[in-house]
Amino acid sequence: MSFACLNITVFGESHGPAVGVTVEGLPAGIPIDEQGLRAFMARRKSQSAFTTARVEDDNPVFLSGVKNGYTTGAPINATIYNANQKSEDYAALCDVPRPSHADFVAGVKYGGFADLAGGGHFSGRLTAPLCVVGYLAETYLQKRGVFVGAYLSEVGGVAASSYRDGLPTAEDIMAAQGEAIPVLRGASKKEIERKLQAVKADGDSVGGVVECVALGLPVGLGECGFKSMEGRIASAIFAMPATKGLEFGSGFALSQMTGSAGNDPWVIDGGVVVPKTNHNGGINGGITNGAPLTVRVAVKPTPSIVKEQDSVNVKEMTNVKLSVGGRHDACIALRAVPVVEACVAIAIADALIQAQGQNG
Amino acid sequence: MSFACLNITVFGESHGPAVGVTVEGLPAGIPIDEQGLRAFMARRKSQSAFTTARVEDDNPVFLSGVKNGYTTGAPINATIYNANQKSEDYAALCDVPRPSHADFVAGVKYGGFADLAGGGHFSGRLTAPLCVVGYLAETYLQKRGVFVGAYLSEVGGVAASSYRDGLPTAEDIMAAQGEAIPVLRGASKKEIERKLQAVKADGDSVGGVVECVALGLPVGLGECGFKSMEGRIASAIFAMPATKGLEFGSGFALSQMTGSAGNDPWVIDGGVVVPKTNHNGGINGGITNGAPLTVRVAVKPTPSIVKEQDSVNVKEMTNVKLSVGGRHDACIALRAVPVVEACVAIAIADALIQAQGQNG
Amino acid sequence: MSFACLNITVFGESHGPAVGVTVEGLPAGIPIDEQGLRAFMARRKSQSAFTTARVEDDNPVFLSGVKNGYTTGAPINATIYNANQKSEDYAALCDVPRPSHADFVAGVKYGGFADLAGGGHFSGRLTAPLCVVGYLAETYLQKRGVFVGAYLSEVGGVAASSYRDGLPTAEDIMAAQGEAIPVLRGASKKEIERKLQAVKADGDSVGGVVECVALGLPVGLGECGFKSMEGRIASAIFAMPATKGLEFGSGFALSQMTGSAGNDPWVIDGGVVVPKTNHNGGINGGITNGAPLTVRVAVKPTPSIVKEQDSVNVKEMTNVKLSVGGRHDACIALRAVPVVEACVAIAIADALIQAQGQNG
Amino acid sequence: MSFACLNITVFGESHGPAVGVTVEGLPAGIPIDEQGLRAFMARRKSQSAFTTARVEDDNPVFLSGVKNGYTTGAPINATIYNANQKSEDYAALCDVPRPSHADFVAGVKYGGFADLAGGGHFSGRLTAPLCVVGYLAETYLQKRGVFVGAYLSEVGGVAASSYRDGLPTAEDIMAAQGEAIPVLRGASKKEIERKLQAVKADGDSVGGVVECVALGLPVGLGECGFKSMEGRIASAIFAMPATKGLEFGSGFALSQMTGSAGNDPWVIDGGVVVPKTNHNGGINGGITNGAPLTVRVAVKPTPSIVKEQDSVNVKEMTNVKLSVGGRHDACIALRAVPVVEACVAIAIADALIQAQGQNG
Repeated sequence: MSFACLNITVFGESHGPAVGVTVEGLPAGIPIDEQGLRAFMARRKSQSAFTTARVEDDNPVFLSGVKNGYTTGAPINATIYNANQKSEDYAALCDVPRPSHADFVAGVKYGGFADLAGGGHFSGRLTAPLCVVGYLAETYLQKRGVFVGAYLSEVGGVAASSYRDGLPTAEDIMAAQGEAIPVLRGASKKEIERKLQAVKADGDSVGGVVECVALGLPVGLGECGFKSMEGRIASAIFAMPATKGLEFGSGFALSQMTGSAGNDPWVIDGGVVVPKTNHNGGINGGITNGAPLTVRVAVKPTPSIVKEQDSVNVKEMTNVKLSVGGRHDACIALRAVPVVEACVAIAIADALIQAQGQNG
Repeated sequence: MSFACLNITVFGESHGPAVGVTVEGLPAGIPIDEQGLRAFMARRKSQSAFTTARVEDDNPVFLSGVKNGYTTGAPINATIYNANQKSEDYAALCDVPRPSHADFVAGVKYGGFADLAGGGHFSGRLTAPLCVVGYLAETYLQKRGVFVGAYLSEVGGVAASSYRDGLPTAEDIMAAQGEAIPVLRGASKKEIERKLQAVKADGDSVGGVVECVALGLPVGLGECGFKSMEGRIASAIFAMPATKGLEFGSGFALSQMTGSAGNDPWVIDGGVVVPKTNHNGGINGGITNGAPLTVRVAVKPTPSIVKEQDSVNVKEMTNVKLSVGGRHDACIALRAVPVVEACVAIAIADALIQAQGQNG
Repeated sequence: MSFACLNITVFGESHGPAVGVTVEGLPAGIPIDEQGLRAFMARRKSQSAFTTARVEDDNPVFLSGVKNGYTTGAPINATIYNANQKSEDYAALCDVPRPSHADFVAGVKYGGFADLAGGGHFSGRLTAPLCVVGYLAETYLQKRGVFVGAYLSEVGGVAASSYRDGLPTAEDIMAAQGEAIPVLRGASKKEIERKLQAVKADGDSVGGVVECVALGLPVGLGECGFKSMEGRIASAIFAMPATKGLEFGSGFALSQMTGSAGNDPWVIDGGVVVPKTNHNGGINGGITNGAPLTVRVAVKPTPSIVKEQDSVNVKEMTNVKLSVGGRHDACIALRAVPVVEACVAIAIADALIQAQGQNG
Repeated sequence: MSFACLNITVFGESHGPAVGVTVEGLPAGIPIDEQGLRAFMARRKSQSAFTTARVEDDNPVFLSGVKNGYTTGAPINATIYNANQKSEDYAALCDVPRPSHADFVAGVKYGGFADLAGGGHFSGRLTAPLCVVGYLAETYLQKRGVFVGAYLSEVGGVAASSYRDGLPTAEDIMAAQGEAIPVLRGASKKEIERKLQAVKADGDSVGGVVECVALGLPVGLGECGFKSMEGRIASAIFAMPATKGLEFGSGFALSQMTGSAGNDPWVIDGGVVVPKTNHNGGINGGITNGAPLTVRVAVKPTPSIVKEQDSVNVKEMTNVKLSVGGRHDACIALRAVPVVEACVAIAIADALIQAQGQNG
């Protein structure tokens, strides 16, 4: 898909030979620190008792576009070979689509030719390649003084700290990312753990909210209209199939306010014009205003649960009961954290490259 | 901007000679009923005491792509000439940017060359051309059995009926659209009116939530990944600068549920496989699943208010007080209703044309 | 259509209310000299006895994106209202398509909804808006030391001077552009005039070759692959429906050479690495190499001629004879000169903006 | 790069781990006959004494988007792993760019980060992935009655048969493709062989002309303007870095004709309206007219030759002599035949999918 300046294709199937990504348009000279990349990828891996037991070795191989540890300017291919496949776990699902998963629509849309094993191209595994691109985008942005960081803000309705309670620093966010449950320091961590234990014990799953913050952005990224900063971030974020909503700054809460309460007044701070509050999440008219960009993402519960659900056998057209075995996540939102961060970083890098083109 | 199949450019400035739109990629043979178009445009006009006194005659002139009442297949240009301009109302705003508006970012991004009068290209007036395209998209979709309809669901925290309380029919939605305050039949209309009166009397503004429903969609529109149905709709919706959030189906509420409660079980209904509930808003894996597509959009309060706000004079770099005169809306969400509908219709029409291309 | 950074939509029909163009992505601050623009547009107008007697006042009105003589950064709309229409001249053509014109294909492609009057959207008149964009692109490039200039190099097989005989200077090219027959100084001008007179007297038309040269280009514009500098220029040039071929540098002649004769050896000249010869037309691997970019464009004879031709009546499905009345060009290549120049300038400006984005 | 409906990224470097391609937008259900694909790829391989001794095993591995021998509708990744690399052959070239090759521009454009070994991403080897996509596009088109075939028409100025001498049938073209020198049956084959022998003996190279013909096209593919059928084909064809010109139908020769001689009169043939001649190469106004699409492509001589050439050492900034060792082609045009065919097929498939989308 063509962003404004980047062209990114995510490919692969859960139980095929590989997943991966090609990227056109990233500048030459972006350094790739193997350990840094590995650490980024590890954040998406299952790390806790509440995520899947299928642990993949998600180390991307760069088949092109990278040499001697730097991007070359040519199209980048990063391939992650699939090692740990258990197709049999999913065999039954081809005829009995999982509730809320893409099995059914993929079957219809592609006229029976879709590869549905393990969710096929619709598997959460396809977010791993996004993280590779996100790592490159973040590295590119870091050199330009931009920090992007995501963390978990809510699990099953249990709220942890949010940027709405006070903007976290880069250090706060990085500290959260070091934890198995990547929430900001605060009181609710234990409660979230208990929630997850109960859900897991029940063979069930639960949703959550991921927040992402970008600091150090210049004024002027994004465009008015269809290429707004919000729209670009949304396009990227909704590439995660579990995403069902997102809001910038105060979002839905802002829709309940009056203008006098919800407008962000301009003030002079250190010789620079900045908004005093940040209900708009750092974006006005689709364009960054120099304040921190803040976004909240609603992640739904994993569709694949052991608990029995209603479904149909599409071949026999009968109502059936479905219990999904295999190795699944009790809360996919935990692993969505680096993916959200990657998506935001990609959208910002794209907008930055575009702005640089205009400004010459 | 290039959608998948449509290429749409919205142009114009609030106080320039015209606003308008060019569209490439709409099929030939879409009938244009002048009265229908006029009625659609009228929905965006100020109709109540709570919207701006600046009433434009928003009748688009088709300069190309339409002949004898049908689209010809060539690029469409619809131009709405500006008649009722009062530039002096805005003169002061060039140096004193409105809180939460694009005045400041546009000034910086375009290095002083931006046309800021009346919000320039960032004015809400630019949503009128979107409605023209939306009308064409809806007409195209109607022929294929698809109905798209939006209505107001919340004002300043006062909730009217929502699809979450029960799916409205096309008739319900059209009935709402006939009213000055386009909410679904229900108890809260009076309360909303009182809320608006209070806000207006206070020289203030207030935000709201718009909902949109699409009925009759086939299974299979949209793509996995960056071209998901959600991402496409979001790209379009965030072209409205007042939008700060959106959620599909149960959205953020779904992120608080367990999988067993929030998954949409498949059932056979009339020989067809359909989801029994619709927490996913008719979309799985970025692709329509045949259920009604439902989306909620958070619209922030109008930045331009009479009530005094803090701002800065960017020329003199001093903190100043700002009271915005001129003719403004107490609640822009009222007029956002047809715009949201237009954006959803555009995104769906684009996805339908793309799917037809694939299916041959 | 989306170039890499510019999004350009040309709209309008020959006998509709207007032709015009919208452009997204051009930087703010490009000055528009009205006289300069008028002079550019005048080059496309019929100026000699050998071009159509239909002389339009092709002065574009900027409906958006331009203020106080500078681009604002917002989408640009330039509209040229049609004044001098004679639809009756073309009435018969709807049923009897002109040989080699788009009448027939447009009728089929758009299922009878196409506006065919005067060629409709396929009229040569649609190249006027291209010239507006070309003028803006040239102005943008001039500030960066790039000159783009086109001239006529051949008419009906009679060759005038070519860059192959020696690279013209910017002055040479501008001198040619001041003439009714815009060829470089040389011996063949009289012969070309005689050729044109004979063709015109015969109620016939004739083709020609336009050449374009770009001087002062930096190394590094364009990309390897589908976004090569050649491919981008070709995409733009073939937007002129009369174009049937193009070659860069020595083009087809280079395909007849050996590598030892046709390769362009690198030499150091004034401390800079440059190619000694320029058979490649300033492009290697799709990317500018710092040498002058040279391109030749084959323009076919105007399809509309008085001389009787064979055609069919598509309604009655009978073979008929056709003599096209109205006001037509004996040699459209004369008027194609500024259009070719515009197309090359647009493609280069787009590539320059893209390269600036990468380089940061 | 985004075509209208297909998004294709070619990746890889000559001496990197792999070359390959990702494709989004190809319909599900295209059968992949392994032997057919292998045969197609073999046509691009070096087959004669006049092409490089570096023979790669160009068998693509589908890492995604293909299952049980059919495309699944998900993004396709085809990877060709590089086996037979000899980087040392090219080591010297990093400092001494080959005349007419991309070594120099890549070095400058990417600020020293480019992978230049063996031409890196600019190597002719990158045309192998194009052939994979071409094969898929051809298979897709065949089911719809469209045949696309290319052959060699000229080598170093020695002409073999051309469509201009009479349109070849599909059988004629397939017969040519079975030969080491893929020219149509005719007298000049021996002469071409002699030419090639002389060139090779001389340590030199030579250019050529490839022709491509598409039969069975419906009326109505392509668009007026920047997305003309010619422009789309050109964009694809110029992705081959050796291409320096192309013409449709009679091309440059048509530019020398009068309208009365060069126009293609409409006639009724078997109840269908068709052009009697085909100087326009089956395209009017950028749109297919039902006649065979014909295109000629100028391929320059291979830059890499044993014969001594002038170049510079860019590090020491001295003029030097260069003799390129390694394994090179005496005439790359021979191997360009399937690549041209692939590019034309890709552009047509893209236009067909787009037209289907419009026509619904």
